[in-house]
Amino acid sequence: MAEDEKLAQRGGIGELRHPAASEPAPLRRASLEEAIAWLDAHGSTLPPEEIGLGEAAGRVAAAEVISPRPVPAGDCAAADGFALRAAETVGAGDYNPLRLSLLEPAAESGGRPGALPPSSAAPIVAGAVLPPGADAVLPFDLAQEKGAALEVFGAVPEGWGIARQGRQLQAGARLVERGRVLLPQDVGLLAWLGIRRVPAVRRPRVRLLVSEPKARGANSFDANGPMLRALVARDGGVVAETGPLAAGPQEDLRTALARALSTGGADLTLVAGRSGRGWDDAAAKTVAELGKLAMHGVALRPGGSAGMGLLGSEPVLLLPGDPLECWSAYEMLAGRLIRRMGGRSPELPYAVREVEAGRKIVSAIGVVDLCRVRLEKGMAEPLGPAESGGLASAVRADGFVIVPAASEGYAPGARLEVYMSPGGVRTQSNSER
Amino acid sequence: MAEDEKLAQRGGIGELRHPAASEPAPLRRASLEEAIAWLDAHGSTLPPEEIGLGEAAGRVAAAEVISPRPVPAGDCAAADGFALRAAETVGAGDYNPLRLSLLEPAAESGGRPGALPPSSAAPIVAGAVLPPGADAVLPFDLAQEKGAALEVFGAVPEGWGIARQGRQLQAGARLVERGRVLLPQDVGLLAWLGIRRVPAVRRPRVRLLVSEPKARGANSFDANGPMLRALVARDGGVVAETGPLAAGPQEDLRTALARALSTGGADLTLVAGRSGRGWDDAAAKTVAELGKLAMHGVALRPGGSAGMGLLGSEPVLLLPGDPLECWSAYEMLAGRLIRRMGGRSPELPYAVREVEAGRKIVSAIGVVDLCRVRLEKGMAEPLGPAESGGLASAVRADGFVIVPAASEGYAPGARLEVYMSPGGVRTQSNSER
Repeated sequence: MAEDEKLAQRGGIGELRHPAASEPAPLRRASLEEAIAWLDAHGSTLPPEEIGLGEAAGRVAAAEVISPRPVPAGDCAAADGFALRAAETVGAGDYNPLRLSLLEPAAESGGRPGALPPSSAAPIVAGAVLPPGADAVLPFDLAQEKGAALEVFGAVPEGWGIARQGRQLQAGARLVERGRVLLPQDVGLLAWLGIRRVPAVRRPRVRLLVSEPKARGANSFDANGPMLRALVARDGGVVAETGPLAAGPQEDLRTALARALSTGGADLTLVAGRSGRGWDDAAAKTVAELGKLAMHGVALRPGGSAGMGLLGSEPVLLLPGDPLECWSAYEMLAGRLIRRMGGRSPELPYAVREVEAGRKIVSAIGVVDLCRVRLEKGMAEPLGPAESGGLASAVRADGFVIVPAASEGYAPGARLEVYMSPGGVRTQSNSER
Repeated sequence: MAEDEKLAQRGGIGELRHPAASEPAPLRRASLEEAIAWLDAHGSTLPPEEIGLGEAAGRVAAAEVISPRPVPAGDCAAADGFALRAAETVGAGDYNPLRLSLLEPAAESGGRPGALPPSSAAPIVAGAVLPPGADAVLPFDLAQEKGAALEVFGAVPEGWGIARQGRQLQAGARLVERGRVLLPQDVGLLAWLGIRRVPAVRRPRVRLLVSEPKARGANSFDANGPMLRALVARDGGVVAETGPLAAGPQEDLRTALARALSTGGADLTLVAGRSGRGWDDAAAKTVAELGKLAMHGVALRPGGSAGMGLLGSEPVLLLPGDPLECWSAYEMLAGRLIRRMGGRSPELPYAVREVEAGRKIVSAIGVVDLCRVRLEKGMAEPLGPAESGGLASAVRADGFVIVPAASEGYAPGARLEVYMSPGGVRTQSNSER
């Protein structure tokens, strides 16, 4: 909300002086670059696991997969037709049909077909190995069955209608690269070759500690738990939840984090809420006491009270309790860590569209601004003051622009990169009501 | 494979004359436009269902969702600080601190706070309702606690630090539009407002009848089942499988389709394999006998032996058994039907990038070609003859270009729209081996 942003401009949430004497000295607010460098240093790709093909689509290949054999495995029919000797079709034409003996379709029992007798043709299905002696496959439209005979209405050259061994894939060919996000057709190709399990990067297990909203009463529903679960799933993680934290004494948070430390079962921890510098904002203090607090406060808006550190060797991220700030800090920090650990591209999973600024975009120097914009006639416009507040602004926006710390914003007409919201249908703006 | 394409050019898989006398007369091969028009006429959006928020991300809103109340619900603190009377801060400054009585933090039990006595300040957390009498919230950086007193180092105007009722959302404001694919932040916003269930378009239930590969032996693994399951999931459908079909007598297929007709439980049926005109390609014939065959053979390559019709009132699509042809026919036909029934955009779920053709792209007149391309130095090049064959070509490609039926292809330098493969890391090409 605008009031929030005015307050933040006067010092930044990460730098607010806290009244309690027991509070550790305020940390210097880290730049977004520093925060990202820390995340990248602590977000190594997780080890691989073998998974079944049925769950492979969308997963990341942890190693390259090699074709165990050539495809086709031997010379075979490229399409349904009649296997024959090409030399025996010479001279055939629409007005000069030649006759061959028509064999019965081979039993579909696999194995090698018997040799083709001279002056005969054998029905064959696409992909089947040619009978010895045959050197071409006559297509249906050049043939007509006549009882036990086949009339041939055209000549085909040797090799016609035959797919050669290894034509599609040679033995040892790389089927998928390491790091590839497996597509449905990749799954199909592996299945086709009889490969039933693939090495995939293990999905990051995310411990989610969500604080109850500070202000009780009519507005006291938790947005962050459901939102973070959906965000973690989007980025390929698995949530290992530990239940909500009461917004109360530090002991709750300490107990939850200490239990997490002792039980394991996750690769990283997200603490949502209690990251600020208010009375019960004990997240940073608790991490500092139980592990190592690397930074608290990032020059990012919204999301400035984010922090990060280690519990043992496991990264822990502090996300603001305000849902918009939480969303922004997840997108800019936590999501990157989860994607990296899962072997995915660390970049934001949004399509980027280059558009012109339709109105001036204002940003403070020294802070990276995640500015929610709407596209109007193909131009990006920041949401107006009446609608830029709260999580609703992230729902209303068509996307967002990341204004670097060194920039005061953009003049109308500037070229912007907009991270496009994939929601499809746009939600009504406040001003349209 | 190239042989396949040569054969297809000589008549098209959909027009091959079949040798069996019992075969119905070959159908005219439909244009892709006709096929899409049929699909759109038979793919209405499914009815809504109520779902929990936990499964809402990625689902399609079946109706708009309205805010049940304003946010904030009343005037409240925009950030943590001290609630006070603005008039009592007039004249305060760094060298002229004013003193107010500091109240205890309100118990976090909800409900309305007690009135603020004159010359006093009450600690307040973001989102909490202001105590009667207070008209501003002093930020931490303008205050210092001194025992039971608060020193104020700056004046704030009336309304400072206050988020007004309805500032973020008014009661009755539209939260999400009908047809929107719900994002994590949408889920968060709904949760925040205490909305626990949302109306979503029911996911299309897809009955999958996958024929075993025709040619037995070393290559006889099914690619289509695993691939189609992943494709259906990608497009928001749910697979209700009925097991594989033996590649054998028509009775198997008839039995499976007849059972499907009688049991229900699906919104559409995909039959993969047995769609061609070979000996056991009974799919079209069986649909014609049990229901209504609308078309068989589409001017599309790969995928030309696709067909469609109705079983009762339920659409049934015939997909080729060759995995590449099956993939192409799914992408161009079946996926569109599933996305439409699920309330999603019917368009291909691929990012489109406009690039220049780096080499000539050749296509036959009268057929829509789904041409697999690779990006080389930012230019699109068709896969070479040695690697354009089989499903491996859809895995190797960086994307594909859809060449319209009226086009013979593109000259180098032509601007192309490439449907980009989202796999991330590219798989090695045949030529790089």
